[in-house]
Amino acid sequence: MDIEIVTIGTELLLGFTVDTNSAFAGTALAERGIRVVRRTAVADGAGEIRNAVAEALGRTGAVITTGGLGPTRDDISKQVVAELFGVPVEFRPEIWDRLVERYKRYDRTPSPSNRTQAEMPVGATELRNQWGSAPGIWLEGPQGLVIMLPGVPREMRNLLTHEVIPRLAGRGGGAPIRSRTLRTTAIAESILAERLGEVEAAIAPLTFAYLPEVTGVDLRLTAWGLPAEEADARIARAESYIRDRAGDHLYGADGTDLAAVVLDLARARQLRIAAAESCTGGLVSARLTAIPGSSEVVEGGVVSYANAVKVGQLGVAGALLDRDGGGPGAVSEEVARAMAEGAAQRLGASLTIGVTGIAGPGGGTPEKPVGTVWYATHFEGRTMATRQVHFGERDEIRARAAQMALYLLWRRLKG
Amino acid sequence: MDIEIVTIGTELLLGFTVDTNSAFAGTALAERGIRVVRRTAVADGAGEIRNAVAEALGRTGAVITTGGLGPTRDDISKQVVAELFGVPVEFRPEIWDRLVERYKRYDRTPSPSNRTQAEMPVGATELRNQWGSAPGIWLEGPQGLVIMLPGVPREMRNLLTHEVIPRLAGRGGGAPIRSRTLRTTAIAESILAERLGEVEAAIAPLTFAYLPEVTGVDLRLTAWGLPAEEADARIARAESYIRDRAGDHLYGADGTDLAAVVLDLARARQLRIAAAESCTGGLVSARLTAIPGSSEVVEGGVVSYANAVKVGQLGVAGALLDRDGGGPGAVSEEVARAMAEGAAQRLGASLTIGVTGIAGPGGGTPEKPVGTVWYATHFEGRTMATRQVHFGERDEIRARAAQMALYLLWRRLKG
Repeated sequence: MDIEIVTIGTELLLGFTVDTNSAFAGTALAERGIRVVRRTAVADGAGEIRNAVAEALGRTGAVITTGGLGPTRDDISKQVVAELFGVPVEFRPEIWDRLVERYKRYDRTPSPSNRTQAEMPVGATELRNQWGSAPGIWLEGPQGLVIMLPGVPREMRNLLTHEVIPRLAGRGGGAPIRSRTLRTTAIAESILAERLGEVEAAIAPLTFAYLPEVTGVDLRLTAWGLPAEEADARIARAESYIRDRAGDHLYGADGTDLAAVVLDLARARQLRIAAAESCTGGLVSARLTAIPGSSEVVEGGVVSYANAVKVGQLGVAGALLDRDGGGPGAVSEEVARAMAEGAAQRLGASLTIGVTGIAGPGGGTPEKPVGTVWYATHFEGRTMATRQVHFGERDEIRARAAQMALYLLWRRLKG
Repeated sequence: MDIEIVTIGTELLLGFTVDTNSAFAGTALAERGIRVVRRTAVADGAGEIRNAVAEALGRTGAVITTGGLGPTRDDISKQVVAELFGVPVEFRPEIWDRLVERYKRYDRTPSPSNRTQAEMPVGATELRNQWGSAPGIWLEGPQGLVIMLPGVPREMRNLLTHEVIPRLAGRGGGAPIRSRTLRTTAIAESILAERLGEVEAAIAPLTFAYLPEVTGVDLRLTAWGLPAEEADARIARAESYIRDRAGDHLYGADGTDLAAVVLDLARARQLRIAAAESCTGGLVSARLTAIPGSSEVVEGGVVSYANAVKVGQLGVAGALLDRDGGGPGAVSEEVARAMAEGAAQRLGASLTIGVTGIAGPGGGTPEKPVGTVWYATHFEGRTMATRQVHFGERDEIRARAAQMALYLLWRRLKG
């Protein structure tokens, strides 16, 4: 079954509101085999709403609208849709009574402007809204099916989940759309594409997409309309095709956070981790400690932004930091190594990382451009260092560097 | 001038990606009096893209597309639009040369699949993309105007701001929609609403909205279609009405980051800041060091996740941490104070903060529920402590705690 979404609201078009409802609806419907084939956002005007809904009905015969059901004057979508179906709007006392009841629970009384919320197009089914005051509307006729939901995210999501999807599934959605996302890091999209070769052909009829994120490139496999068992089997085969080729850049699937992967491996070996950070300024520790239960593994960290802290808290030799005195300077292999080793010694951690680089926008030189980062990991008595030059602006460079630091910790843990 | 946006990507329809680009574009265009009248999201299929772009051209004659310009095979929108305009696609060596140059800076070479990124419809103007590898495209003909931008948010935003809007503004937009957002923190929306009183009436015809964020409550003032000077004057009057009532919870306007406010004040007084963090695990340092130029102010920090690090790196007395021995425990006023004082002493910073709390999901008790956080600031020889119980899940508690830490640093700086 194909469906379109029409979101109604001038705020959305002006960009004052980010539309998160549509992403939720897309996923929830796809899981039941109902495919959202187009999404249209229009302003609160009657003409705009009418055209968008009529066009969508013309294409697919089924539309979900969100927004435009509140009591304020700019909310007119109910009237517009009733007109499209050639039916009047009627006041339904039982809806009004429930609204009065609901307000009473919060020691309030509805205002007269709320009365429009008890109005429904004649012939429409009320979708009872236990999460707010505007009921949803299910209206079906020769023109097709229009389902109207309020725009408030919690109300929209609950109505979709509990009232809309069960009804739609009853009319036989297609086979569900199943997908799996494989997560890679520390490898460029183009290199990954070369390694994967003719992946689309190899995994057909699944579809395949590269999704570049700041954490790396995600790879999405999607099975469209296959029976569930076949979809799962094909996804499993495609995953092993990709795993064979992506090698140790593939760290997990779906929502997996690389920080959690690192913590799991370290926890299994009863290791304690510490980070000594300069350019990432606490991000590596923040990524690790964002994971519940991280206190079992994370010993702590030092944000050695100033050179004095590198010396005082990590024991980095001052001569290394002194470029005028012939030292390699703060952004160097030597200092990254000294930071990792200092963190191990001073904090008593078994696996440590030192990160020092130039996040920009200032501080770059021809030999060490903005984005240059030295990393060193210390583990089992051995320190290993590597250099990267990261793309992007300050925020991106820092985010990429934190992810790279986690990747290097992961590699040491895997041995 | 009216324009439509067509976002291209199966991912968007399936809800795998939340569309944040469109909100940015809506706001940026509205500020210049260019009205986005419709937004359509379609899948990566040639037919879907062709129909959506052709329909939009039929309605408004001007379309911005986002997405579908990358080097992988699912990116076909360039070809589709060229066909709509009846022109072939040509390879442009100068675009390719810059791409090679760009890769070289990062010690890489583009792969053959990148060659399509140097292709443009004949007659199109290249919108130079300094932020990524896919150039934007400006194509104008009897069919109308199509502007194609990559979907990667940073690239899309920069191209829109620096290449598209200046060109569009040249053709005369209407009266701009102007808005200003005032940012508050460490005050609940309901308390703020009581303080502000009849704000809507006081500032009419501007409109007003409360926008609760994890960093605090933002307050948006909007002038709709007023002449620019009148809009600015009314917004300035409304701002002073609000500033008088919100008091020292209002820390800035529009995109202002509280971390930048703290850094500016500290820089002006030549102070050095350090954070000693337990439950926030590096987030306070990460917030501060995210701001360009923060190295002039941030000395460093200690992530004292384990008690051993609190003792070893910050000099917190072990007896305080030992609850079995009658100490108050790690989450206590005493330990927060000792962390702030230890950071001042060990790192040699003039303004420090200690943060220790329970981010959850585990670790809560009836006396110290999840969300309990103790803060202490140390400045000019005096340590001040306060306790908060933050709402939400782990990520939210940590984000709120980092913001509260910055708020407390700001309060100390203002005296």
